Amino acid sequence: MSQLSEEAIAKITQSVADGFDEQIAYTQELIRMGGQRGHEADVMDWVFKQYNDRGWNPIRIGMDEKELSQHIGAGRFSETHSQVPIIIGTHKPKGEAKGKSLVLNGHLDVVPLGPTDMWKADPYSGLIEGDRLYGRGAGDMRSGAAANVWALDALRRIGLQPASEIILQAVVEEESTGNGTLMAHLKGYKADAALIPEPMQEQLVRANVGVLWFQIEVRGRPVHVREMATGSNAIDSCWKVIGALRGMEEEWDQRYSSQQYFQDEKHPLNLNVAIVKAGDWASSVPAWCQVDCRIAIVPGVSAQSAADEIEKKVADFAANDAYLSQNPPKVRWNGFFSEGYVLEPGSEAENVLRKAHQQATGEELTTQTSTAYIDARVHSLYDKIPAMVYGPIAGDIHGFDEWVSIESVKRVTTAMALFIAEWCGVEEI
Amino acid sequence: MSQLSEEAIAKITQSVADGFDEQIAYTQELIRMGGQRGHEADVMDWVFKQYNDRGWNPIRIGMDEKELSQHIGAGRFSETHSQVPIIIGTHKPKGEAKGKSLVLNGHLDVVPLGPTDMWKADPYSGLIEGDRLYGRGAGDMRSGAAANVWALDALRRIGLQPASEIILQAVVEEESTGNGTLMAHLKGYKADAALIPEPMQEQLVRANVGVLWFQIEVRGRPVHVREMATGSNAIDSCWKVIGALRGMEEEWDQRYSSQQYFQDEKHPLNLNVAIVKAGDWASSVPAWCQVDCRIAIVPGVSAQSAADEIEKKVADFAANDAYLSQNPPKVRWNGFFSEGYVLEPGSEAENVLRKAHQQATGEELTTQTSTAYIDARVHSLYDKIPAMVYGPIAGDIHGFDEWVSIESVKRVTTAMALFIAEWCGVEEI
Repeated sequence: MSQLSEEAIAKITQSVADGFDEQIAYTQELIRMGGQRGHEADVMDWVFKQYNDRGWNPIRIGMDEKELSQHIGAGRFSETHSQVPIIIGTHKPKGEAKGKSLVLNGHLDVVPLGPTDMWKADPYSGLIEGDRLYGRGAGDMRSGAAANVWALDALRRIGLQPASEIILQAVVEEESTGNGTLMAHLKGYKADAALIPEPMQEQLVRANVGVLWFQIEVRGRPVHVREMATGSNAIDSCWKVIGALRGMEEEWDQRYSSQQYFQDEKHPLNLNVAIVKAGDWASSVPAWCQVDCRIAIVPGVSAQSAADEIEKKVADFAANDAYLSQNPPKVRWNGFFSEGYVLEPGSEAENVLRKAHQQATGEELTTQTSTAYIDARVHSLYDKIPAMVYGPIAGDIHGFDEWVSIESVKRVTTAMALFIAEWCGVEEI
Repeated sequence: MSQLSEEAIAKITQSVADGFDEQIAYTQELIRMGGQRGHEADVMDWVFKQYNDRGWNPIRIGMDEKELSQHIGAGRFSETHSQVPIIIGTHKPKGEAKGKSLVLNGHLDVVPLGPTDMWKADPYSGLIEGDRLYGRGAGDMRSGAAANVWALDALRRIGLQPASEIILQAVVEEESTGNGTLMAHLKGYKADAALIPEPMQEQLVRANVGVLWFQIEVRGRPVHVREMATGSNAIDSCWKVIGALRGMEEEWDQRYSSQQYFQDEKHPLNLNVAIVKAGDWASSVPAWCQVDCRIAIVPGVSAQSAADEIEKKVADFAANDAYLSQNPPKVRWNGFFSEGYVLEPGSEAENVLRKAHQQATGEELTTQTSTAYIDARVHSLYDKIPAMVYGPIAGDIHGFDEWVSIESVKRVTTAMALFIAEWCGVEEI
């Protein structure tokens, strides 16, 4: 591994700056293509072409439900699961590798918009105001997916390329199952470290929760509202079940309050009561209620044991309820079924990233505990490599007027280019 | 008005029985045509043809939103309001009327099915098992709409017809706004009394609630669930508003507990929390929540005053909530906006119906308080005529496996034919 000279650092930094307008235009283009879950084909085709133009010999890997289903960390399939293939691009050095290999991973899927009238501009416009680039995916994580490409372009601009293998993973399903990156693992793509530029406020993720998605369904006996007392209101019954799960959430937060890296988190294992669909007629007592939930678990807890506990909680509660005992609620696992991970401190990869960050920003790299799902768990748990999640300052992730700081994207891209240059080494093209 | 002879009673009773298999086949045909809200055109066309075949010179009257909107009792329009015209058929006596005139009203709209796997048979199959005819609308009220026609057919079968005017009203929107029957009122159709064979367990409705439909919408600031504490969960906020309205429901039930005809009702003014739509992503704190509700009011309370109270309740609650005070919930009136009525005892029409019921069933006619909306409020409040709701035994109205008792339909049709014969008089065709 090379030690970058002052001159090399300055040249790489300048090169990122020289290409930065184009990089932001590329990011805007990605935002404008949109692509909700299952509809990422256009944006992925565009990424494929970008990889191909750069000589990374991209290939597509389809979602293999059977193969995925046999893996302990696979998210559960539902009718909304994306069938859009992931893309793997590969940079090969000219000869034998002179440095360490690297996975650069980024997801192209984005979450829904919510009511668009609550956005100040078209969520897909790629509006820029001051330092902020707005749009769904601006932060999470099309700016990061772009940075994966443009960090390498910055080296190319000054006649350099990584002196070892880079595996570029452009995936979908990161927001729902994590099955995109898991497909890359199942196909054997692996390197000495992985870097994912998720919008982490220029911090490095030290520990990350696992996440489970599930749906509670309660059915009731609908009757005319005039006979309300004789029918069970499925919404009310479902809400009682949710109440029991909220009790469990508190219990978990207590149980794991002294877990390493989680002591400072006030409420790390949030149960999100997220989607409700119930009933179809105002004058009928509702016959059914479906509530989609998301809950988190600390590293070291298996998804299966958490799922078992949730199912038991629901069953125990139902057993003591007059109506629910006769009409047991269903628990359906319909997305993430993932475990958390810890990035063990002191790895060489982390040390190189620390240095690159310091060179790019003048600041020491700090770490954070992430209480949201990130695909790095695949690289960490199953590839067993240092999986570093580090990316730009962003805000309103999953919300209205999602944005990313343009200057932060520049700093992070610089840090990434410097990291790549030192971790992988560089060679003349 | 005639006093029916023993012989006439026997002949009419026998005639209903003679046509009864055909009447049930006609009812099954109506059930099989289905027709959810806004999609009643086919079934209404079929009814039009039936009226036409019988010489009732049917006409169609379209929903006039402008005219309706100016009427105090109109249900509020929404995008789901049916645009299917109502049908008015008219029977004219040969010469001058010899008895009293009558409105025979029935609605052809039906409520949704709910999950069809919770039905034991296709909801539109018209399945018969023993005394029960099953299907959506079997009770509410295609069997009654059929009885309106077949009570007159029973007279015709023995060479008779009413000796005064009969206005047949085949309407839609009875399950959502009451605007179908209100259109008939606005066009000036009126008689000396009205009869609606809703499934009232062979009882007469003495008093009936008014009904209001509304939707509460709460919007929240969605964020990634990892920052749950900084976003407002719209579902949770909405549920707090519903809690406040449930308090108001209890208050109303208390306030009107000594209201005449409502003293024996345990819970007459049910707030039905009926339809919920909220959120779109399990890992986003939900940005919005819409809850459709239905509540009832006792006769004498104006719909407007009830609506004002509901809006004030919501506003007052929101004013004291940190989040909702900044993001006030919206209340949207999207259906029924109706007042209740009382059928004053002792009318001549009621006395004639009592006698007819006794002749048809051998039992005394009893009365009930209805805690569901019925279109008779239009005839009672705005036409100011005795509006009698009386119909067959039925079950699971608005539920799964809705059914009507076939023998009860026969008894009620007989009582109707006898009532018509005495109230309107009869003449040879």
